[in-house]
Amino acid sequence: MKYPMFGSAYYAEYLSHVKPEGNKSRTDLDLSLMAKAGMNTIRIAESTWSTEERSDGVFDFSYIDEVLSCAQKHGLNVIIGTPTYAVPSWLIKKFPDIMLTTKSGKIKYGPRQCIDVFNPDFKRYAERIIRRLIEHTASNPCVIGFQLDNETKHFDNFSPYAQKAFVAYLQKKYVTTEELNKDFTLHYWSNAISSWEDFPDLSNSINGNLLCEYEKFLRSSVTDYLKWQSEIIAEYKRKEQFITHNFDFEWRGYSFGVQPSVNHYDTSSSLTAAGCDIYHPSQDELTGAEIAFCGDSTRSLKNEPYFVMETESQGFKTWTPYPGQLRLQAYSHLASGALGLMYWNWHSIHNSFETYWKGVLGHDMIPGAIYKEASVIGQELKKLGGRICGIKKRNDAALITDNCSLTALKYFPIDEKLSYNNVVRYVYDSLYEMNVECDVVDINALDTSKYKLVIAPALYCISSANAKKLKDFVSSGGVLFATFKSFYADEKATAYSERVPYSLTDCFGMHYNLITQAKNLCVSDSNVHFYAELLEADKAAVVHNYEHKYWSPYAAVTRNVFGSGVSWYYGSYTDKTLLKETLRNVLQDAKIPVLEETFPIIVRSGTNEAGENVHFILNYSSNAASIKCQYDSAKDIITGESFEKNDDVSLSDWGVRVLAE
Amino acid sequence: MKYPMFGSAYYAEYLSHVKPEGNKSRTDLDLSLMAKAGMNTIRIAESTWSTEERSDGVFDFSYIDEVLSCAQKHGLNVIIGTPTYAVPSWLIKKFPDIMLTTKSGKIKYGPRQCIDVFNPDFKRYAERIIRRLIEHTASNPCVIGFQLDNETKHFDNFSPYAQKAFVAYLQKKYVTTEELNKDFTLHYWSNAISSWEDFPDLSNSINGNLLCEYEKFLRSSVTDYLKWQSEIIAEYKRKEQFITHNFDFEWRGYSFGVQPSVNHYDTSSSLTAAGCDIYHPSQDELTGAEIAFCGDSTRSLKNEPYFVMETESQGFKTWTPYPGQLRLQAYSHLASGALGLMYWNWHSIHNSFETYWKGVLGHDMIPGAIYKEASVIGQELKKLGGRICGIKKRNDAALITDNCSLTALKYFPIDEKLSYNNVVRYVYDSLYEMNVECDVVDINALDTSKYKLVIAPALYCISSANAKKLKDFVSSGGVLFATFKSFYADEKATAYSERVPYSLTDCFGMHYNLITQAKNLCVSDSNVHFYAELLEADKAAVVHNYEHKYWSPYAAVTRNVFGSGVSWYYGSYTDKTLLKETLRNVLQDAKIPVLEETFPIIVRSGTNEAGENVHFILNYSSNAASIKCQYDSAKDIITGESFEKNDDVSLSDWGVRVLAE
Amino acid sequence: MKYPMFGSAYYAEYLSHVKPEGNKSRTDLDLSLMAKAGMNTIRIAESTWSTEERSDGVFDFSYIDEVLSCAQKHGLNVIIGTPTYAVPSWLIKKFPDIMLTTKSGKIKYGPRQCIDVFNPDFKRYAERIIRRLIEHTASNPCVIGFQLDNETKHFDNFSPYAQKAFVAYLQKKYVTTEELNKDFTLHYWSNAISSWEDFPDLSNSINGNLLCEYEKFLRSSVTDYLKWQSEIIAEYKRKEQFITHNFDFEWRGYSFGVQPSVNHYDTSSSLTAAGCDIYHPSQDELTGAEIAFCGDSTRSLKNEPYFVMETESQGFKTWTPYPGQLRLQAYSHLASGALGLMYWNWHSIHNSFETYWKGVLGHDMIPGAIYKEASVIGQELKKLGGRICGIKKRNDAALITDNCSLTALKYFPIDEKLSYNNVVRYVYDSLYEMNVECDVVDINALDTSKYKLVIAPALYCISSANAKKLKDFVSSGGVLFATFKSFYADEKATAYSERVPYSLTDCFGMHYNLITQAKNLCVSDSNVHFYAELLEADKAAVVHNYEHKYWSPYAAVTRNVFGSGVSWYYGSYTDKTLLKETLRNVLQDAKIPVLEETFPIIVRSGTNEAGENVHFILNYSSNAASIKCQYDSAKDIITGESFEKNDDVSLSDWGVRVLAE
Repeated sequence: MKYPMFGSAYYAEYLSHVKPEGNKSRTDLDLSLMAKAGMNTIRIAESTWSTEERSDGVFDFSYIDEVLSCAQKHGLNVIIGTPTYAVPSWLIKKFPDIMLTTKSGKIKYGPRQCIDVFNPDFKRYAERIIRRLIEHTASNPCVIGFQLDNETKHFDNFSPYAQKAFVAYLQKKYVTTEELNKDFTLHYWSNAISSWEDFPDLSNSINGNLLCEYEKFLRSSVTDYLKWQSEIIAEYKRKEQFITHNFDFEWRGYSFGVQPSVNHYDTSSSLTAAGCDIYHPSQDELTGAEIAFCGDSTRSLKNEPYFVMETESQGFKTWTPYPGQLRLQAYSHLASGALGLMYWNWHSIHNSFETYWKGVLGHDMIPGAIYKEASVIGQELKKLGGRICGIKKRNDAALITDNCSLTALKYFPIDEKLSYNNVVRYVYDSLYEMNVECDVVDINALDTSKYKLVIAPALYCISSANAKKLKDFVSSGGVLFATFKSFYADEKATAYSERVPYSLTDCFGMHYNLITQAKNLCVSDSNVHFYAELLEADKAAVVHNYEHKYWSPYAAVTRNVFGSGVSWYYGSYTDKTLLKETLRNVLQDAKIPVLEETFPIIVRSGTNEAGENVHFILNYSSNAASIKCQYDSAKDIITGESFEKNDDVSLSDWGVRVLAE
Repeated sequence: MKYPMFGSAYYAEYLSHVKPEGNKSRTDLDLSLMAKAGMNTIRIAESTWSTEERSDGVFDFSYIDEVLSCAQKHGLNVIIGTPTYAVPSWLIKKFPDIMLTTKSGKIKYGPRQCIDVFNPDFKRYAERIIRRLIEHTASNPCVIGFQLDNETKHFDNFSPYAQKAFVAYLQKKYVTTEELNKDFTLHYWSNAISSWEDFPDLSNSINGNLLCEYEKFLRSSVTDYLKWQSEIIAEYKRKEQFITHNFDFEWRGYSFGVQPSVNHYDTSSSLTAAGCDIYHPSQDELTGAEIAFCGDSTRSLKNEPYFVMETESQGFKTWTPYPGQLRLQAYSHLASGALGLMYWNWHSIHNSFETYWKGVLGHDMIPGAIYKEASVIGQELKKLGGRICGIKKRNDAALITDNCSLTALKYFPIDEKLSYNNVVRYVYDSLYEMNVECDVVDINALDTSKYKLVIAPALYCISSANAKKLKDFVSSGGVLFATFKSFYADEKATAYSERVPYSLTDCFGMHYNLITQAKNLCVSDSNVHFYAELLEADKAAVVHNYEHKYWSPYAAVTRNVFGSGVSWYYGSYTDKTLLKETLRNVLQDAKIPVLEETFPIIVRSGTNEAGENVHFILNYSSNAASIKCQYDSAKDIITGESFEKNDDVSLSDWGVRVLAE
Repeated sequence: MKYPMFGSAYYAEYLSHVKPEGNKSRTDLDLSLMAKAGMNTIRIAESTWSTEERSDGVFDFSYIDEVLSCAQKHGLNVIIGTPTYAVPSWLIKKFPDIMLTTKSGKIKYGPRQCIDVFNPDFKRYAERIIRRLIEHTASNPCVIGFQLDNETKHFDNFSPYAQKAFVAYLQKKYVTTEELNKDFTLHYWSNAISSWEDFPDLSNSINGNLLCEYEKFLRSSVTDYLKWQSEIIAEYKRKEQFITHNFDFEWRGYSFGVQPSVNHYDTSSSLTAAGCDIYHPSQDELTGAEIAFCGDSTRSLKNEPYFVMETESQGFKTWTPYPGQLRLQAYSHLASGALGLMYWNWHSIHNSFETYWKGVLGHDMIPGAIYKEASVIGQELKKLGGRICGIKKRNDAALITDNCSLTALKYFPIDEKLSYNNVVRYVYDSLYEMNVECDVVDINALDTSKYKLVIAPALYCISSANAKKLKDFVSSGGVLFATFKSFYADEKATAYSERVPYSLTDCFGMHYNLITQAKNLCVSDSNVHFYAELLEADKAAVVHNYEHKYWSPYAAVTRNVFGSGVSWYYGSYTDKTLLKETLRNVLQDAKIPVLEETFPIIVRSGTNEAGENVHFILNYSSNAASIKCQYDSAKDIITGESFEKNDDVSLSDWGVRVLAE
């Protein structure tokens, strides 16, 4: 298997409208164009159940066979996706109950990703098609690995099957209903029950905590479901074939933040390698922040290089890259530690639904500007080989994320315009723009011994054990930086009835009782937005007070030496300027050096398989730039140019350098 | 019973998460903290059916007994609420039909306030729990009164039971369906019926008038429902125990205006004392207008002092009072004639739903800034006793309100951004800011003999009888001020087919036929917004014409001497400046003196039980202020300071003075 | 039959609330007022099924008889509408299934226009009431014609009956399901089927093309439905009686653009004369553009004069005409070739639903300003007679429209704020403001031999045959002007897999492959909004390039001489200034002369029955104006004034001149 992986999703089954050229089949032509562009991998089959099993038990893998045979001919690797995230019409005609039920009721047939995975009929049929497909393809030498389902999520499943399973899950935790009543305050608005039979349909529940628990349960069902698929595949696969998944992120028209409905960390245990898709703004909005955030998150799942299973080449009217951007994006993925990247998809689709989610080829199927830039990338990657991919990191800082806090802040919001992920990205992006690299780690996966600095944005929910872990980290010399809305509630999102920050008031040397809105509120000339906590310093040093007629007695930012370490608390959402200024001091406390360069010049570093220290210098700007070489002696491994310390290193607009020391 | 009543709602059943302190129960601790703060009353039980009747017929009032016993220990009074506004899960499992049906269909179990009160099963079970609870508590000496249900409304009930009752209600009024067809123009779009069996489900009706009538019927069902509860309680209660209700107002994130789905006046006949909840903006948005409007409305129901059953102490991030505001608010309630006030609620709730609708104690349960200011209030009120509460008013002006007009203007709107209540508040607030006090009176409760001035904001619907009452009022010397959209339709919201203002064209000396939007329209340099009527003066004096190329021949404001009185008509929604200027002239016609002070200095006056004339001077501003004493000799009954006429009376920011002459 | 037709809809059945005056019936009074105002026609009965058939089989036409008898008395003509667009309650009680099913489910009884016209029970009952009504009225001498139903549309019918008919429609086109799978790429997201029984409910389909086809099928069902009504009427009607329909347009609070859910052209084949309703902004927003666009569209259906079945006299607060506007509007309709116009409706309705969609009389039923201006119009039209109506046009330019493109761009949008009709109006209005008249022609009705210039706004879908027709038009000397998003997909909205503009790259001498958003994008100092295509000129002359750091190598506007003709392509949505400047050059290519006068002076011309060339000079402004007479010798047929070439022709604000050469 030759890395870097470079290629695209390929859908032979969507090409009925395209006239074949000469005596070549369209598939043959497409795969030869890929090979010519330096591509080496395609992904197929992940939504083709109705093509492979046209009616109950009637299987037909001929289109797959054709693609595999063409792939072999052109030396391309193939990843096989299980086809379970979209079901055939005949299955639903036979078992209408398989369709997902959400709060709004049963979904009607049509879209993908609306299946009740708790439904036993679905499971039986899904298992059969998976076994047949994997059996049929696993032995093919060009098949390098498998993708479980696609972008699996819990889809807010409120089916009777799902809810029944949830009651069983609760019964394992609570011996009596009164314990349940108390833990979730079901007495509120007369929702208490005295027998499990009285447990009501949850789809109109007002109890935010019960719904948080339900979502936690649903996330665990995603983990279970993919584990089940993984175990089936394991029965067939060759040892060297990988199993991955295409994780996706909170979606705001592009990949934005922590995925609410899957616990990526828990789920990744069923994978031999992590994988994800990353879509991001383009043109003047291209900053690289999404590529970095999603990359850092996915790499941190297994602390290993990962696959970018999907990313955009072009799309709609907004995602048409400026000359140079496609190449800059490719190197940015590799700079985060990716093993390679795959476009979605090869060709623009001519009808149905994602018609303007375009591909490397436009609707005219003629290699154009996008194909040409992809070819440049392909040729460079081929040349660079193992030196450019699977970069390993040893970061001193960890930014911790948490599905429970995310969900809790959905039901108990900070502000309608400030979600959990807004806070995560507010902090992450500030670090990114300062060129401070970090791991993005699930709170339950955090190994504090690896880090000098732990950053907690809006970590609303905290168990006693995790609070203790963080306190121990600080007392033994670590630096902790937390924002507002951290350490307020337990893992079930129940607000603590003790002083907050919960169990860390001594660690932060501070507590607070009052919160306020942010009208006309400033901190050190920086505007406060959305929300503010009125901090009362006990032992902490007050770094900044609020500027306000009534709230100026209260602190906005505090710093506390605790044991051998330092704790910072940032009490409100300010303009980014003040946050960055504060983080600069935090990093100094943690003894983490900060580069002089800042965004739009992005520097990301690591070690390649050959043990070289490589530095990706990425210019996220339509202006050319020049920086001073920071390394004693370095070589641009793309161009071969050599630089000594303080030499000028020029970067074209949207340009890239990869310096190896 | 010692007034002023001061306290809060108290929910022992929500406290499972709070660790008891030492050997005191949490309830014991909470009630002792209340007593220490000068509080004297708690309200309990209004949403605890599932706690009291855990399964069908299995009753348990032990938690109530504990609270009552603690209350006795600490000398607190208790108000018992009937628990019917939230139903237990077991009841719905048994009788699913009890759940409310709205236009959008059947509501699923979960929230409160979604019960079909026409359902006979519900009525049977509700009666049983009410009887058991009242029987259990009525004889307890600390129980001073009862609250019927809570914030009852009709909740847009479109259940089959409700609609069947509506048809019966119509059959009482109409002998034949053809009479019905004609009265509601059911011939429109082919909706006419020839037999009662053909009466269709109304939930998708397009007939605004039929829907107005249906809402009127639903409002009467709320009146009937609370009357039914009141009569049950009357069988158990001691003579001195009161029966009240917690009326609420049109809700816009706070109490805004006339309640659309209850007729407060009709319903108040089942109460021995009126009660309501009042929530209002805080911090820089605190103006006192909601406290005044809702207070004037509730006091006018029975022309008696009233209870503020709920108001905010703090809440969310927006309702954190500045120092002094909590105290200012308390005195403002008393200034409107309240018998006292209760916070909602004692402690912030740690999970479920209203977690950030905070209480006197925050989540940490530690007395903080809010508790401290509440204690100041408590001590002052204790000292002032009867001198400060139950203030009686004798106002010369009445502002008339009308549920029918409100509903009619929902179906036949003035402008999507200008509802009935916007007009009511536009006029009320102008008076409030000019320190002109008024009663806020239901059109059908209006006794014109009590007033010099009657104010009619957007009184769209008017019966012939009420039109005559107003005409007689003017002809015999009264002053009438009406805005646009008054006197246009009958009580069923059918536009009159005569000249408008209906039956009052001679009284106003004016009529109109054309209406227009307000683009580029001015009156006396004041901008017109939303809507304008193009008035044609017959005998009236034109106070202002419109300023506009085409509409300048038409009048905007007219004044007409009619009999011994004067009628003013205000034809469009202008900036408030012109309205206030006009009202100043109207008040002069009515010989009602106007104070020099205006908002943010608010002055509200009345007579206390001891017969003293007391004047509340309220400074709704973050700037300190000083006014001249208007009274020959007055004493601040809080501080004991004395003032002579024209002495400077200083007020701190958000400060308060209560001067007794 | 004396034209111009002038009158209104009249609803005797809505007048129960109006007291009759003296011994006259209200109908008698109303019709005498109409006659006095110079009106000559009323339309009745189009939504009165429940009045005419009060219960199953019980008919009563007495109210119609009274109206007809009054009409005869006052010399008014009557148009009878079939009453089928609103059904009686008893019919739905009997056959609940008749109610429309949309994507959101079954509609509940109440509104009009929510019937499943595929339902056989509905068809049976509808046929009976139509036959009875027409039989009852056809022989009456004052009945001049019939209107089929009213504003019929397909109403997004997703009933089982409709969907079953759609499958039958598909089965006629596709022998096997695999052909269907391929043509619509049902393999996408596993939607392929292998038997017709597996064809799923479409109401949640994600396949935009299948939904486009379904809407095309639904449009054909409207055509069939009205044809069916037309054939029934034909059995009864006298030869001279016309059959028309009240077509309406895409509705944005007024008539805006091409109707998405009816193909007006196909449907008009069942009519003896076309008819439509036209509502438009008023006061300062009155431009005449809607009157012109809808008029040009309706006239072009049969290339004959047409009826304006409904237009506003006044309405709400926004539609109160300034003095002179009502008259200007009336002449504007005639200027487009209307046979006359009818107001909706005679009197304002006092309750139910469209209470403020007012009539010639206000709610007070007293002739006021609106009636008076209508009387002026009535008297003038009476005097002008045949000289002023049924004006015929011979336009050199055709603007082509297309339901398929409209629907396709709903599912595959240009921009959420730029719909197909926005583009149509963008181009049409530019021409209108330049005083360039055009026919508005369905692409499938286009006879290129009639025109010098064909204009294609956003003609997204194009068949090979139509593409050839346009290419031939240009090569043989025509001028073609097309905007962005033209010639991209086939009639099923499937993007072509060839170079675009499809099959016209040689004709335009240009192709493109990339599209982009419009941020910071300019063309010749004009801002680009929403969307841009990056054109690559092959043989075409580049008229303008984009101004942009990266997109400046691409063309924005191209011009190509092809054969004996010229093709223009306009690649993006710019400010109107540049479009008009470009169109000026296009018109020069087409040798179409352009008047000097531009909006707000509008000039529209044609030939009347007497063969006179008449020119309507319309001043859409609140400022008076004066223009130079362009004709050697002309007479204002309203005032009798004569003008020689270059004489000053004065126009009052919102004034009108009709000059006959």
